[in-house]
This record gives sequence, C-alpha cells and structure tokens, in this order.
Amino acid sequence: MRVEVSSDPTGLHRVLDDATVLPQAARRLDTRRELWPDEVRVRVERLNLDAASFRQLERKHGGDGAAVRDEVLSIVAERGKMQNPETGSGGMLVGVVEEVGEESPLGLRVGDRVATLVSLTLTPLVVEDDLARWDGRSEQVPCDGYAVLFGRSIAAVLPDDLAPELSLAVMDVCGAPALTARVVGRYDAPTVAVIGGAGKSGSLSLAAARAAGAGRTIGVIPVEREADLLTGAGLADEVVLADARDPIALRDAVTAAGGPADVTVVCVDVPGCEGGAILSTAEGGTVIFFSMATSFSAAALGAEGLAADVTMLVGNGYVPGHAAFALELLRDNAGVRELFEGRL
Amino acid sequence: MRVEVSSDPTGLHRVLDDATVLPQAARRLDTRRELWPDEVRVRVERLNLDAASFRQLERKHGGDGAAVRDEVLSIVAERGKMQNPETGSGGMLVGVVEEVGEESPLGLRVGDRVATLVSLTLTPLVVEDDLARWDGRSEQVPCDGYAVLFGRSIAAVLPDDLAPELSLAVMDVCGAPALTARVVGRYDAPTVAVIGGAGKSGSLSLAAARAAGAGRTIGVIPVEREADLLTGAGLADEVVLADARDPIALRDAVTAAGGPADVTVVCVDVPGCEGGAILSTAEGGTVIFFSMATSFSAAALGAEGLAADVTMLVGNGYVPGHAAFALELLRDNAGVRELFEGRL
Repeated sequence: MRVEVSSDPTGLHRVLDDATVLPQAARRLDTRRELWPDEVRVRVERLNLDAASFRQLERKHGGDGAAVRDEVLSIVAERGKMQNPETGSGGMLVGVVEEVGEESPLGLRVGDRVATLVSLTLTPLVVEDDLARWDGRSEQVPCDGYAVLFGRSIAAVLPDDLAPELSLAVMDVCGAPALTARVVGRYDAPTVAVIGGAGKSGSLSLAAARAAGAGRTIGVIPVEREADLLTGAGLADEVVLADARDPIALRDAVTAAGGPADVTVVCVDVPGCEGGAILSTAEGGTVIFFSMATSFSAAALGAEGLAADVTMLVGNGYVPGHAAFALELLRDNAGVRELFEGRL
Repeated sequence: MRVEVSSDPTGLHRVLDDATVLPQAARRLDTRRELWPDEVRVRVERLNLDAASFRQLERKHGGDGAAVRDEVLSIVAERGKMQNPETGSGGMLVGVVEEVGEESPLGLRVGDRVATLVSLTLTPLVVEDDLARWDGRSEQVPCDGYAVLFGRSIAAVLPDDLAPELSLAVMDVCGAPALTARVVGRYDAPTVAVIGGAGKSGSLSLAAARAAGAGRTIGVIPVEREADLLTGAGLADEVVLADARDPIALRDAVTAAGGPADVTVVCVDVPGCEGGAILSTAEGGTVIFFSMATSFSAAALGAEGLAADVTMLVGNGYVPGHAAFALELLRDNAGVRELFEGRL
C-alpha cells in the first residue's frame, strides 16, 4: 500500500467528507484495513452502545430487536462508524490488538485485550459477522470485525483481576466519576446529588463524590426497585425517589433530602432533566451533565430563565487517569461492584 | 377574574402542557392578560430574536422576509411564546411596564422602560399588530403586544444615557462578558481566544477578558471586513482570520497568534465549532460555549475523542450583575461602542 495522505493524530486523514471536519463530526470515515504509521488495528469482540443511543433505537423500533440490529448494521456500513444520527452518540468497544503501526504512541502490543476509551462516533469500524450473535435487545453487542485507533486515541488494557465485561462497563462511564471527583474537590464538604444514582455512571459518581470529600451524598432514582438497590449498595447518605423530568418534583425531593446540592451530577439518559437539575442546585453550585440526552439550549436558557447562578459543565468523557480511578472505585466499593455485576 | 391556581415564581402556573415542565421546556403557555399577584405585564415595543434562531428561519425561507414573519407569528400564536422549534432559542424584548402585581418582587413601576433578561422561550407573549412594521429581514422586530414576567424573571430598566436599541443589544448578550470575566479571573494572566470576536457577545467578551486580567487576547473572525472592524476597535492583541467550522484551520490560527488559549470563548452562531474550539484550547484550559448552535454531544464526544483535558461550560446567560457590567464595558470602551452602533 502506498500512503499518499500523511496521517494526523486526530484521525483527520480518514475523514471522507468534503469539508475539513474531525472524525467525530464526519459523515463518513475511511475504514481501510491498512494502517497509517501511527495507527492501531483492533479485532473487535464486543461493542457497548451508548445508553441514550440504544434507548432511542429501542423506542424507535418498538423493541423489535431485529430492526434495531438492522439499523445499527446500516449505520456502520454507511458511515464507517457507529454514530446514532438522532442522539449523536456512539459507545465503545473491546477487542484484541491485531496490528500496531510502527509510529503508534499508544504503547499497545499485538495480543493486548483493550477497551477503547474514545467514542465509537470517531472510530473507523467494519462489522464482519452481520452481528449475528446479537438479538438487538441489549446495549452489549457481540461482534466480529475490526476498528482503527489513531495517534491521539485512548485505549486501556483490560486488567487481569476483573472480568472483561465488568471492566468494559466501568471504562464506558469512567469520565463521570473522574470529573465528579475533581469538581467535588473544589468545594468544602459539599452536598452532592446524583440524578440516576443507581446506574453505572451514577453509582461510580456517588462513590467518587464520597472519596473526594462530599459532606452528604444524595442519590435520586425514578423507581422503588432501584431505590432498594441503591440503598443496599450503601453509596448514598440519602436515597430519594423522583422523576427527573419533573423539575418541581426533583427540586422538592433533593431539598427534602438535605439539598439544594452544591454539586448536581446528571446521569440519566432521558431528555428533559435540565430544569430540575438547575432547580436542585444551590446558588454558586455546579451542575455536571453526563447524559447524552442533554439539550445545550435547554440548559443554557433554563438557567437564564430561572436566574440561577450555577456553573454548568458539559461532561467531558476524558480526564487523565479516569479508567484507573474508576476501576479502583469498583475494587474498593463492594456496593458499586454489586450494582455493576447485577447489570451485566 | 378568579385565580384558582396559585402562582409559582418559575411561571409553572402558566404552563398548559399535561406534564409538569418549566415554561422554557413547555410546548404552550397561558397568555391571559390578567396577572397573578407576583407577575408584571409589559407592553412590548420590540422583540430581539436570538441570532441563531433568526438565521435558521432566514435560511429555511431562503431570505423571504414575509415567510419568516408568518412563521414567527404562527409560532407565537401556537405556543404562546417565541421559541424556534429548530434551535430551541428565543431572544428578548423591550417594552414599557403596563401593570405590576401587588406581590411582584422585581421592583418595577408602571411606565418603566425595560428589557427582559430572561429568554423569550419562557415569556408568555401575545402579538397584537401582526408584526406589520417588520419586514422579516432583521432580528430586530418592531412589535405591539404584551408579555408577562414571573416572580423569578429578570428585567432591567433601560439606562437614560444610552439609546434603547443600544442598551437592548448589549443586554441581549450580557451573560457572555460576565461569565468570561469570571472564568478569566481564575487564571493568571491567561491567553484568551474569542471565536467571533467582532460580534456583539464577542466584542464584549474581549473587553471583559482584558478587564479581568487576560495576558493576551485573540479575536478570531471569519472574513477580512470583520478583521478590519475588530482591529480598528482595538479590543484584541491579535486579530486572526479563520473559519471556526474548520477545526484544523482554527487551531492553527489561534496557535499562530500565541495560543493555544487558556480560555476559549465561542460566540459564533453556526453549528460545528466544537472541535476547533477544543483543539485551540490548552490542557487544563476552559471552553465557554455561548452559541445556541452548540451541540452538547459534539462537545462532549469531541473532547473525549481528542483526549482533551479541558473544562467545557454551558454559557449560562445569567450571572449576577451582568447587565450593569456589560453596560459599563460599553461605556468604557469606545471600540465596543462603535462595533455595537455599527450593527444597529
């Protein structure tokens, strides 16, 4: 193969669009097998679809798994990557390193089992088994195919002491606890409310908040069954029931549990939680939005419309050391581990 | 009139949707003239549509002003508020206080000429003149009608020393300079890049960055004519040309001007600027997104995909004292004032 375009660590050289856009914003990526010198090719074993994306597909097809699978196949075939056109989100994957370009800075070796910590929305992907082993009913997708990592991608070698599915599930959301810990550490013993506290990113964020010095942690969940789970896990000082889409109900529930919160972490993958999160947060507090269902304009205009002096963060999935930190939280908190194992 | 629903400072009592949502998220608002005790009614003189909203309407109708006007009228009639269904954004208004409820906490008096500092997306609005004086070709909309403010709304009395249109234009974007100043103040003599530096929020943000201690200010604009304007205004240490939708061009332009930036402020109302803004920002830096064209998922996944350790803020339009601060910046900076007056 003769490489005529030189590679860029961002993956720009694989963008097939006419305009200069980054791979994440591109409509279509070049999925050729041959590597540029700074790339790595991974033999895919499993895709882990972003929760907001999977739910959107599930809703759209009324739970028809075959139709969900067909749509995922057609998105990947057409775009050269898995990016839900509605939610804009993707997910991550686990696989085994198949080839390492001679100039790759990622430090991976052939045979390493890795999880990608960059989104599927910017990862060149080819599915080679028609997802025949997937019933379309879960965001965990058994898959044979290959994916390409760029110079600036991030992949973590799966640890030996944990099941691969468990590590993958943790790494999928590892940005949330890392950023939560960073923000909590800026306040003095703050009250921290985690909306969706029994979920994957939610339970890790609760554990991270406590580790980072939260004075009080409040886990908000929508249904009784989850409340029992979260109470059993012992991750929150208070566990309260509320529909996060109902702003007044959410505000009242958080207030009754000792709020308003200094730090509110939104981890539920449903649209319409912006107003309630803002109303649940004290003046001078911070809201961190991790849900891909977050609407930028609803957050911006919601805070303005409520004259709420709160800092609102776009949940950046990358914080240095995030994967190792999240795995440590899982190892150190039996409650987190139980919640995760119960969801595999 | 008998009021059977008690009022809520958020305006919840005027939401006509079946679900409990805040006025900003509501599909339809109750526009009845009669006030609840904590409300204020304003006789509207002028609407100022959000720039992203106006441009979307202009594009959709190919610049046909009459069609743009018809769509605005139909949105307001149907929803009881001006909220562009595509962009989710609204704008603001100027008018004269017509009636003040006996329990209103806003401190307004009948006859005060005010600008609303909460978005039109949550303000009950009735248009009574069919917008007959508007040609549909500018975001400034002469209008006769009425609007309602809630207990927790914000409205500022227009100052005597400035033309009302000038004050309105400043107040429309006053959240941007206030938040920029706050963030800049957290760094030590930072480099600040303002994308869209010659616009309204952009020029005020440049002035705010300098006032808050920026070590170097970089104004990025898309076209030569704007570069001349901004250079003439003397608001930026460096003025550079780049299309903000081209991430590599934007990164290279900001770098060449002394970047990457510690603080990047995005003030351009076009989609697709997230990647470039992230790439233009130093590790540990902050990106503030003020544009309503910002995509939450593009920002979140873009930063993750680039392994960029940057803090990303949803530009909250409310910061205490924002209107007074922005008006002071205008009075103190002849360059800002000239840019604003040139755009009226």
